[in-house]
Amino acid sequence: MADAETRLARVALTLLAEPGTRAVHRLVARHGPRTALALALSGEIPDDATRDAVRARLGAGDPRPAAEAALATAARLGARLVVPEDDEWPTGLDALEHVELSVADRRVDRELAPPLCLWVRGEWPLVDAFDRSVAIVGSRAATAYGEHVATDLAYGLAEREWSVVSGGAFGIDAAAHRGALAAGGLTIAVLACGIERAYPVANTALFDRIAETGLLVTEWPPGADPLRPRFLIRNRVIAAATRGTVLVEAAARSGATQTVRRAIAMGRPALVVPGPVTSAMSVGCHEILRQHESARLVANVAHVLEEVGRIGADLAPPAQGPQRPRDQLDDQATFLLESLPRRGVVTPDAAAIRAGIDIRTALRKLTLLETLGFVMRRDGGYALTPPSRRPAEDEPP
Amino acid sequence: MADAETRLARVALTLLAEPGTRAVHRLVARHGPRTALALALSGEIPDDATRDAVRARLGAGDPRPAAEAALATAARLGARLVVPEDDEWPTGLDALEHVELSVADRRVDRELAPPLCLWVRGEWPLVDAFDRSVAIVGSRAATAYGEHVATDLAYGLAEREWSVVSGGAFGIDAAAHRGALAAGGLTIAVLACGIERAYPVANTALFDRIAETGLLVTEWPPGADPLRPRFLIRNRVIAAATRGTVLVEAAARSGATQTVRRAIAMGRPALVVPGPVTSAMSVGCHEILRQHESARLVANVAHVLEEVGRIGADLAPPAQGPQRPRDQLDDQATFLLESLPRRGVVTPDAAAIRAGIDIRTALRKLTLLETLGFVMRRDGGYALTPPSRRPAEDEPP
Repeated sequence: MADAETRLARVALTLLAEPGTRAVHRLVARHGPRTALALALSGEIPDDATRDAVRARLGAGDPRPAAEAALATAARLGARLVVPEDDEWPTGLDALEHVELSVADRRVDRELAPPLCLWVRGEWPLVDAFDRSVAIVGSRAATAYGEHVATDLAYGLAEREWSVVSGGAFGIDAAAHRGALAAGGLTIAVLACGIERAYPVANTALFDRIAETGLLVTEWPPGADPLRPRFLIRNRVIAAATRGTVLVEAAARSGATQTVRRAIAMGRPALVVPGPVTSAMSVGCHEILRQHESARLVANVAHVLEEVGRIGADLAPPAQGPQRPRDQLDDQATFLLESLPRRGVVTPDAAAIRAGIDIRTALRKLTLLETLGFVMRRDGGYALTPPSRRPAEDEPP
Repeated sequence: MADAETRLARVALTLLAEPGTRAVHRLVARHGPRTALALALSGEIPDDATRDAVRARLGAGDPRPAAEAALATAARLGARLVVPEDDEWPTGLDALEHVELSVADRRVDRELAPPLCLWVRGEWPLVDAFDRSVAIVGSRAATAYGEHVATDLAYGLAEREWSVVSGGAFGIDAAAHRGALAAGGLTIAVLACGIERAYPVANTALFDRIAETGLLVTEWPPGADPLRPRFLIRNRVIAAATRGTVLVEAAARSGATQTVRRAIAMGRPALVVPGPVTSAMSVGCHEILRQHESARLVANVAHVLEEVGRIGADLAPPAQGPQRPRDQLDDQATFLLESLPRRGVVTPDAAAIRAGIDIRTALRKLTLLETLGFVMRRDGGYALTPPSRRPAEDEPP
């Protein structure tokens, strides 16, 4: 458990630089939060851009009273602060220490350092909640198809006692939370603003339900606005804290595709649900599958579990068509059956010739076909069983 | 140009063993068609199973008169016989010489030898028609989505002077042919029965249209029935004769997935169109993409051309969202813009503090934002341009 001064220093540092800033993270890693704050306050940050940015924010005044106020507000809201020194800090976030994005992936959050602290509303210890967790992300402007799939996947994961993690947006995010809640599961919304800011406002009731049985989590102190770049900064937490990220629907270049790219950069399972190629909302999904060899197409919960589950324990069964009686037939029996006339009786000799197999084999296979109900003996030969009494089938001719 | 006896021998051998039989192909490769036929007639085939099968068919009589009759019938129908000795023999079929399927892929056509001959209706020389060709295959029980995509892909390929190759079934096959025909392109139906057998009968008019401007092709002589195993035997020709195979919709374990597996086994591009994971008709497509690393997801004609086209000549452009004015902004300008209050005026100093960037940078970025029309000077500071006059955007907040 971290002491009060350490916690306060981490909050104050969050007020001085956006989460994810590498230079600040390095300072904390080297000197500890309290010394790091002192250095920041006196302008001793090695990185020029960060030093200038911190100086600009210091223009608004000493961050420590604001940090005290943020902690007091959080306490009043029933929220708590969790810091890396706490036992409940989710270990998956450590992966952000070393991750680098390729130039193609860069947007405003090109710096991907781990969070300095997390504000949390809800009962679960973070580390437990994130232990068996899967992120489900996608477009705000999702289609009915996407929302259906997100709900269905989240429901299935929750049923199997996996936590669902997403943002707080309309569309795929909300659908995923609803699916997990419907299954009585644990769901976690990672926000891009203060814990008390229900953004979007229309999701207020959803956030309250999530906080009751699951968790609301954010890097930003109470009062922070949901500025656009923060959604992307937030995405690295979703990718890092979970065992894998599922992308359900995404337009080209959308924020959700960026979350998956972060998962890929960290070597976490990047799972993508395809959709109709005629849907703009699946273009981003298909592009990820085309561009990244490590991205994996998933079509159902079993596929997801196969990737995020413990190796060998959760293998998805291969897709199977319905088992047909014909599946019991070998090549020769199949050919023999297919070669029989639709109507009338043939002798075993004639059947063998039609099928191009020898008579001994033909007799053996006819016996098999009779046993399985495909043919019947009649008038000294064999005839097809009438369709009504034949084993069901579904292919031509 | 092969002599008449060679041609007759190849037809007679087709009557004695199903196309694709390895032992017969080897006999022809070693001794030539005429000697191979003589050996088959006298029971001298090294492979036991094939020898027995040939003997059984010989029970129906000498195949040479039947072969003569088949050639006469074909001539009457306006069809011709093409043999490997002819200049127009499609070279892609040679790939079948060495291809082996894994046990998992086996069905009744475990033998994949090249055809002994092909019956053809239509004007185009085979080798030209198949030179720039793409197979489009899929389910008979296709959905409206699948038929739309198949038609669209075939139309786009035909427009770019690629031939389309498919079977003759309802669903994806017919949709592909219709798309190519609509673009005035060359389309080829590879049948699993005699050239004069319109199977399914409801596609008779379609086959006639295909024969007028494209080609009908089959390994089986006139009169041959569309027996079920023949569809799978036929599929190897579709995969081998083309530059790549596109799978549009397929149920698990369907025949169309087998065609793609044959393309994969031959190292040909295996291209798969995904679909909704809620559709049984896309399960086979998704399984191929999950099981085979070499299978490639394609969503449009550009993607297909990228794989089958000459290297470098037909690269598909990466998917792009609409170009937005915001794309011209760097990280700091974006953050600055996002940090401005929705209403009212701020001084450059206040803007810099809100954004956490230094004042010199803030002034530079504000000038940029003003030039691009995002902000305007007012009352000694800066304000957001009213939404109606702001560059269009599409993301929160």
